[in-house]
Amino acid sequence: MEPVTVISDPLDPRLDDVRDLNSSDRRPDLPGGRGLVIAEGNLVVPRLISSRFPVRCVVGFPRRLAELVDAAAADPVVAAGLSGVPLYEVDRETLADVAGFDMHRGLVAAADRVPEPTVTEVLDGLDPGNRVIGVLEGVGDHENIGALFRNAAGLGVGAVLLGAGCADPLYRRVVRVSMGHVLRVPFAHMPGKTTTWQRGLSDLRDRGYRVVAMTPNTETTLEDAVRGAGRVAVMVGAEGPGLTEHAMRAADVRAKIPMAPGTDSLNVATSAAIGFYAATSPGAADAAQRPV
Amino acid sequence: MEPVTVISDPLDPRLDDVRDLNSSDRRPDLPGGRGLVIAEGNLVVPRLISSRFPVRCVVGFPRRLAELVDAAAADPVVAAGLSGVPLYEVDRETLADVAGFDMHRGLVAAADRVPEPTVTEVLDGLDPGNRVIGVLEGVGDHENIGALFRNAAGLGVGAVLLGAGCADPLYRRVVRVSMGHVLRVPFAHMPGKTTTWQRGLSDLRDRGYRVVAMTPNTETTLEDAVRGAGRVAVMVGAEGPGLTEHAMRAADVRAKIPMAPGTDSLNVATSAAIGFYAATSPGAADAAQRPV
Repeated sequence: MEPVTVISDPLDPRLDDVRDLNSSDRRPDLPGGRGLVIAEGNLVVPRLISSRFPVRCVVGFPRRLAELVDAAAADPVVAAGLSGVPLYEVDRETLADVAGFDMHRGLVAAADRVPEPTVTEVLDGLDPGNRVIGVLEGVGDHENIGALFRNAAGLGVGAVLLGAGCADPLYRRVVRVSMGHVLRVPFAHMPGKTTTWQRGLSDLRDRGYRVVAMTPNTETTLEDAVRGAGRVAVMVGAEGPGLTEHAMRAADVRAKIPMAPGTDSLNVATSAAIGFYAATSPGAADAAQRPV
Repeated sequence: MEPVTVISDPLDPRLDDVRDLNSSDRRPDLPGGRGLVIAEGNLVVPRLISSRFPVRCVVGFPRRLAELVDAAAADPVVAAGLSGVPLYEVDRETLADVAGFDMHRGLVAAADRVPEPTVTEVLDGLDPGNRVIGVLEGVGDHENIGALFRNAAGLGVGAVLLGAGCADPLYRRVVRVSMGHVLRVPFAHMPGKTTTWQRGLSDLRDRGYRVVAMTPNTETTLEDAVRGAGRVAVMVGAEGPGLTEHAMRAADVRAKIPMAPGTDSLNVATSAAIGFYAATSPGAADAAQRPV
């Protein structure tokens, strides 16, 4: 591990990777700009360091950097990821000046993006025991994408495929809300526009996934839709409009979460969590033991 | 319905019910202060008007008030709730001055709190067909409480009981995040301190509810815990610490959502949503048809 370098000048160019984090045009995590991946806090930074994204630097308060060094001593994957990475020690005022706000967590890291795998590569890389993946269309809200990746990771979802209209999953806010899991759960964008849903999903079907489109506008319940499926692709659309008719036509089955009359649909990340839960439950796999 | 009164002076005392909405000490929704219930926007305001809380006034932009009048013409419950309620028309600048921020939704209503029913009254008032209620302990975050009530309403949960350490469910932010459902789903606080969990929950058991404590620290899955239960009380604790041992000892069974290794627990409102979903699924009710 590199020795820690103390920096007290907020204008020091070695801090440029974490500069203007809230700026709408200069922020480093814009895909069209510097395109960096930014992680914050002593829970998420080690997850970035353990991920496929090559870390460029870590900036933090003395105490937070010491905790990170301890974490590396306890975890060889973190230690390997930190090898050769510059560690910059700053005080709270300096970091606030650089980041553009008071970053009370006191630890931030920047990494380069890496070329995104193709859908085929992501599916080829799945654990053979994987039974559930997620498919998103039009989920444009960063908090929803982040929560959805957190839920996917927790519920053992193997990968997430992104259709048209989804927000950038490597935006700083997504990384934070996902608790860093967007750096770990493999994802890929479906190629082209919505006109390719049919083709994009046929690859999933060839691999034995039942594609389940979540929508309130069907009589089939989620419980019935996943029963006996073995492998399931849970497909959700934007909060409000939901999945497009085009996407739903490309699915194998439409499924609803039974809702009380007079209520709103659930938040998209919550709907997806229920879909993931239902699809991963043993009852979804072993249809033979259950009467339909 | 009252005629609309135009107000252009931000200091007009008739607007005091919606003044300083973001102030930490003067805001009108603090239980120790004026104790009002505040609803915002053309989705939630009609829900306040239709609720048990007596509305004191509605303040809004001309267009939003016109929409509300239309909603009342289409819904006799809204019309009845609006009877005798003053409607104050303001422009955007005036409302921003009064509320303390730019309230772009352009519609806000204030209502009086009403005495909270007891747990017994809430349980007595449940629809006989109700099968699932929620029980919270230590859920101190307003967004989580709001999301939880939204999920409860959507998934047909009949009531929510609040144990020690829960945030005020009638705080403005809770009302908003719940999309107004906290005004509709009956709730009551369990009396006393945590030492009464045993007694508080025995009332539920007497009524045929199986009390299921959600925790990652058990081998029993949620699916197994709710199977054949008929009626279920889904009990969740604060994100992070979770339920206290005391609360869990008072439950009938502990249940986990199966989680992938190396991930964090789910958000408490998401965990509750999965618990509500599992408990309301037909599989939870008709055990006789299913092998265990």
